[in-house]
Amino acid sequence: MAVIKKATIRDVAAKAGVALGTVSRVLNDHPSVTPQARRAVREAIEALGYERDAVAGSLRNARTRMVACAIRDFDIPAFASYVKAAEAVFREAGYTLLLASTSNEKDVELSLLRSFAQRRVEGVMMTMSDEADVELAQGIASASMPIVLIDREMMTNVDRVMADHEDGADQATSHLLALGHRRIGMIVGDPAAYPSRSRIAGYRRTHDRHGVQVEERLIRNHVLSNEVAFRETTTLLSGDNRPTALFVAAVDMLPGTLRAIRAAQMVPGRDIGIVAGSDSDLAELGSPPISALSWDRGEMGRHAAEMLIERIRDKKPRPARCVRLPVALIVRDSAGRSNADQALK
Amino acid sequence: MAVIKKATIRDVAAKAGVALGTVSRVLNDHPSVTPQARRAVREAIEALGYERDAVAGSLRNARTRMVACAIRDFDIPAFASYVKAAEAVFREAGYTLLLASTSNEKDVELSLLRSFAQRRVEGVMMTMSDEADVELAQGIASASMPIVLIDREMMTNVDRVMADHEDGADQATSHLLALGHRRIGMIVGDPAAYPSRSRIAGYRRTHDRHGVQVEERLIRNHVLSNEVAFRETTTLLSGDNRPTALFVAAVDMLPGTLRAIRAAQMVPGRDIGIVAGSDSDLAELGSPPISALSWDRGEMGRHAAEMLIERIRDKKPRPARCVRLPVALIVRDSAGRSNADQALK
Repeated sequence: MAVIKKATIRDVAAKAGVALGTVSRVLNDHPSVTPQARRAVREAIEALGYERDAVAGSLRNARTRMVACAIRDFDIPAFASYVKAAEAVFREAGYTLLLASTSNEKDVELSLLRSFAQRRVEGVMMTMSDEADVELAQGIASASMPIVLIDREMMTNVDRVMADHEDGADQATSHLLALGHRRIGMIVGDPAAYPSRSRIAGYRRTHDRHGVQVEERLIRNHVLSNEVAFRETTTLLSGDNRPTALFVAAVDMLPGTLRAIRAAQMVPGRDIGIVAGSDSDLAELGSPPISALSWDRGEMGRHAAEMLIERIRDKKPRPARCVRLPVALIVRDSAGRSNADQALK
Repeated sequence: MAVIKKATIRDVAAKAGVALGTVSRVLNDHPSVTPQARRAVREAIEALGYERDAVAGSLRNARTRMVACAIRDFDIPAFASYVKAAEAVFREAGYTLLLASTSNEKDVELSLLRSFAQRRVEGVMMTMSDEADVELAQGIASASMPIVLIDREMMTNVDRVMADHEDGADQATSHLLALGHRRIGMIVGDPAAYPSRSRIAGYRRTHDRHGVQVEERLIRNHVLSNEVAFRETTTLLSGDNRPTALFVAAVDMLPGTLRAIRAAQMVPGRDIGIVAGSDSDLAELGSPPISALSWDRGEMGRHAAEMLIERIRDKKPRPARCVRLPVALIVRDSAGRSNADQALK
């Protein structure tokens, strides 16, 4: 039986006809390699079945080729779409994605940042549970690797990708006001972070513009789970002077809201108007189909991944960038018409 | 300004009043440490703010405290639930989860296994696109780290966690036959893997038991995306002798099927009976609510993570284990009644 000798980096250099340093630069994704040399090295690696020990390799070169993404919760479908798109970009560029969930807790976010640094993760995509938190802001600003924030706006010294949620909320609220609704319940997340804060701002701005008074008790915030969405919707539906429509502005909280509407023996679109803050299969395929705000989550993930890879490759200090994606209202058949006889001023 | 000296492993040992080797064993999660010593070391680490360099530490100790999970696709909600549950168990035990998607492609699965080995990942949770593939089976059997297979059955030398999909399919098919349906269309995934193979087996077994002939053209397999689910459902609904009911046996393929039913201007439960192969918000909150098979995906993730951690900690060879979870049919209001006047034999 032939003895199979493990290929070394020297074998790869010899086969590719390049210097040892060139192989090393290709392995470490250094920009100063010609496309021809890169191809020759990759082909030699393939032909020889060369495998380097990534841990030993990364200790010498301080390159682990790992990036990380911290999301609030794995089982929120809206987050999965941008993670999926980002992962495809990372994989194409030769990075492996480390994924972790934060439960939207500051302590977890800080401890993950430390853990990523210890593992020499080269870049991080993340959110922040509280944009005004000084400790969190310091943790992010002083991190040893580049960070791209997803749907956050306050840290202007860090790259960010966000959707224009204030404009989205304006469109949803305008649509409901135009149908005659004057008491619009709002189910929304934590105003400590940009998406919910800006949606509330949009909701208020639109009411002001139309001269309609906002009833503060109709804004139910801190809704971060479908259990809470159920409870808050039930509260809204059970009082006197209940809303004639709901703007379910928290991402992926439509199931809890629909459960509460069903429990109150009401039918969406007939007994109560409804606009979802984020599109989903459930919104599209509901009966009636539910009007919803939509933005390109794949685009969000791709932008974030590309910005991060650029930062990793080009270590020169450059001003932070911000990509803001548009939000569109998909009008379906759920917004209802208020019984109130008031018309839009 | 005081000079802050970084705490070393020696400082931790001194503060905790234990030997250096004890600190190292705690850091490496070695079983032979008393709970008291473990607590003292953890408290000293906390008090001193000791942080080890994980890459350098893992090179010496061959411990990275990373585990990996390879799933077919990030944005299939059913997979997110078990990943979420597994991640909680891993985090509690001090492991970081590396998550990757395979697109259900053998080459990606093999290349991920190599990449995990290079990164000295300590254990892997994964599926296999094709259980009969020899190369894939060899890759898994010869992996340098323990592996737990999710919803796979053929590699009996590897730990596995699975749901009893054959019994689930039997329940769904029996329910539809009992309502008088005799032509039941089946939308199902790739029979190269256990879930779809066993669902098809259950569907056939139940037909046989009731003396009903299976029409082969009603079984539409290889449905792994909602686009394909739409196309296959459209094909089923457009021919002569179309089915009076559909068993949407592929996980999370209900949206594509419902889109096709809507496009055919049919109403689920009225014009066509429907049972979903996996429960979801969409099934629960549909109008009518859609009967669906359900199993505890959180339990699946927890079992897999616990089995993997046990394998990592206890390196003694032990026979492979298999956990099989029950599947239940949640009867809602969508299965319809066939117009056919045949009764169950």
